Amino acid sequence: MSKLYKETLEAIVPVSTTLKSDAWEKMNFKTKPLGALGRIENLAVQMSLIQESLNPEINQKALFVFAGDHGVAASGVSAYPAEVTPQMVMNFLNGGAAINVLCRHHNIGMSVVDMGVNADFEPHPDLIDKKVRKGTRNFLKEPAMTEGESLQALENGMSVFLEVHKKSPVEIIGLGDMGIGNTTSATAIICAVTGINVAESAGRGTGVDDEGLEKKINVIKDALSLHKPEAKNGLDILCRVGGLEIAGIAGAVLAAASQKVAVVLDGVISTAAGLIAYLINPDVQGYLISGHKSIEKSQVAALEKMKLVPVIDLDMRLGEGTGAALAINIAEAACKIMCEMSSFADAGVSEQNLSS
Amino acid sequence: MSKLYKETLEAIVPVSTTLKSDAWEKMNFKTKPLGALGRIENLAVQMSLIQESLNPEINQKALFVFAGDHGVAASGVSAYPAEVTPQMVMNFLNGGAAINVLCRHHNIGMSVVDMGVNADFEPHPDLIDKKVRKGTRNFLKEPAMTEGESLQALENGMSVFLEVHKKSPVEIIGLGDMGIGNTTSATAIICAVTGINVAESAGRGTGVDDEGLEKKINVIKDALSLHKPEAKNGLDILCRVGGLEIAGIAGAVLAAASQKVAVVLDGVISTAAGLIAYLINPDVQGYLISGHKSIEKSQVAALEKMKLVPVIDLDMRLGEGTGAALAINIAEAACKIMCEMSSFADAGVSEQNLSS
Repeated sequence: MSKLYKETLEAIVPVSTTLKSDAWEKMNFKTKPLGALGRIENLAVQMSLIQESLNPEINQKALFVFAGDHGVAASGVSAYPAEVTPQMVMNFLNGGAAINVLCRHHNIGMSVVDMGVNADFEPHPDLIDKKVRKGTRNFLKEPAMTEGESLQALENGMSVFLEVHKKSPVEIIGLGDMGIGNTTSATAIICAVTGINVAESAGRGTGVDDEGLEKKINVIKDALSLHKPEAKNGLDILCRVGGLEIAGIAGAVLAAASQKVAVVLDGVISTAAGLIAYLINPDVQGYLISGHKSIEKSQVAALEKMKLVPVIDLDMRLGEGTGAALAINIAEAACKIMCEMSSFADAGVSEQNLSS
Repeated sequence: MSKLYKETLEAIVPVSTTLKSDAWEKMNFKTKPLGALGRIENLAVQMSLIQESLNPEINQKALFVFAGDHGVAASGVSAYPAEVTPQMVMNFLNGGAAINVLCRHHNIGMSVVDMGVNADFEPHPDLIDKKVRKGTRNFLKEPAMTEGESLQALENGMSVFLEVHKKSPVEIIGLGDMGIGNTTSATAIICAVTGINVAESAGRGTGVDDEGLEKKINVIKDALSLHKPEAKNGLDILCRVGGLEIAGIAGAVLAAASQKVAVVLDGVISTAAGLIAYLINPDVQGYLISGHKSIEKSQVAALEKMKLVPVIDLDMRLGEGTGAALAINIAEAACKIMCEMSSFADAGVSEQNLSS
């Protein structure tokens, strides 16, 4: 285990609750009925605790799309061929994907991280090369990664965050994914951790038909029977049925938490990666925000395990960080509510008459 | 019936469906699995149809907070005293309310419309004076408004939109409310139109306790028994149990639709006003977007009647247009997806293999 991995894990402390009652008091005396801003209020208080400030701010926002290929794609678990992973990386670099549009719209700095795409890319200012190997092995037959590869991928994810944050500090990050076959890996991870039923929780990913879904369910079941991953051992699960981009996201979660930076997870892949990070160090929990509710059913179990409630629910299932980008904007709005909105006293507004 | 009212209603045409299949084709060939952006795709197509363009744009956004007092507030239906309506108008004008923060965050031009607040205000650049009278009558005892007052309030709402749109054209508007007692009026309207059960659908508004809720339920029941409003007659319902700010919002909906501008409704009050507009002219339907799901239960029935699905669901119940402001941003993102995102052919990405 290298120095970076060890130091990052050691630096993670739970989100401080010192300001919790002060933060709620500040929110409760704002000019609105108690609780009337719903979960915006929870987000505002969470950001206050993360930043240990009653005036939380989001000035710099970053989103990372972690990309990697999956050996299991050869078993026909996706509606798209594996070459779509590098094609989509090029689409991201050319600014034409959904996540590019949403990051531009919300003024979020976006980078693509090659964790293990089965292709070679020319250098590009928005591409961060952290390739560990050209795709995982097919976990239907053998572990997806060795322990050394998994640790390297986790560390690479950590360094992605730490390098960007050192150059230009950020207050919040979104973590997205690209990798044909990766809902199969994500679902296997979540089933391994939570024990939920594979047949009931596997979804159609990019859009497999009934036959494809049945194949996918059988692949996940067979892989879990073959590997019997330990439900509480994040690293073991990652090695056996994980993915390089999933490891990268988990590493970025751990690194962001170590620097007290809020992390917005995206759909089922990003959430499965968050779950790996959570198993490695449960103290990341308070830094996590679930960006959106995927239509992939297994995400629910992962979110329950981490006690997270998604911000957005728009029936999305694209990944890339698209749900996270929308939620980052709402977290930013929540911070501004905390900072800018008047109290009853400031505004000279009569308070709620609780005896009415 | 005046010229403005008549001309506005005559100018409303249903949203054109001419481009519907072209719009969906454009969306379906973008670099994402079919339907993977969920309801963002529906919003993008809706904006295309409203603007009769495959490249819908949102350049100027406006949000109006319509304010008015309610005679029924004297019957103790709110957790706040009636003087909070003018106090909150001042808070809006001073920039300290939640809606100010969200409009600034999303670069939405915001104005406050005095439709019938029981107070006098100094002129202010963000205040539009459209006062019909200082509050409605208590509809527990008599109709809230005369037919003349209701028509005047509808027209005033129309002119608010038309004047702003003439000076600086907008592509989307959000419609919010302020008025102590107005969830009582909104719930009465929705119950009158949809026939839902009052006891099951009335909510706590700004936060009445159990006793207050029971009082509120009885007030609504008694008012509906007294007035027996005609379920299909928007103007009749408005006169009997409506509100001046609700009429203003309904007028703005009708005027925006007449100019083919998208309208984002907010919570239960704004939705009840949308329902009045819908009864007056059902052709407004295609221009309507439901901004957010309120925790007020009666909103659901109103949305079902208009076949609308809320964009945001964050357990909010503040009104002011806060949910609409968040949804306007998502509608803007949807337009950019339609305009800026690459197709499979543009990006050289392999399409979905539907035979896999």
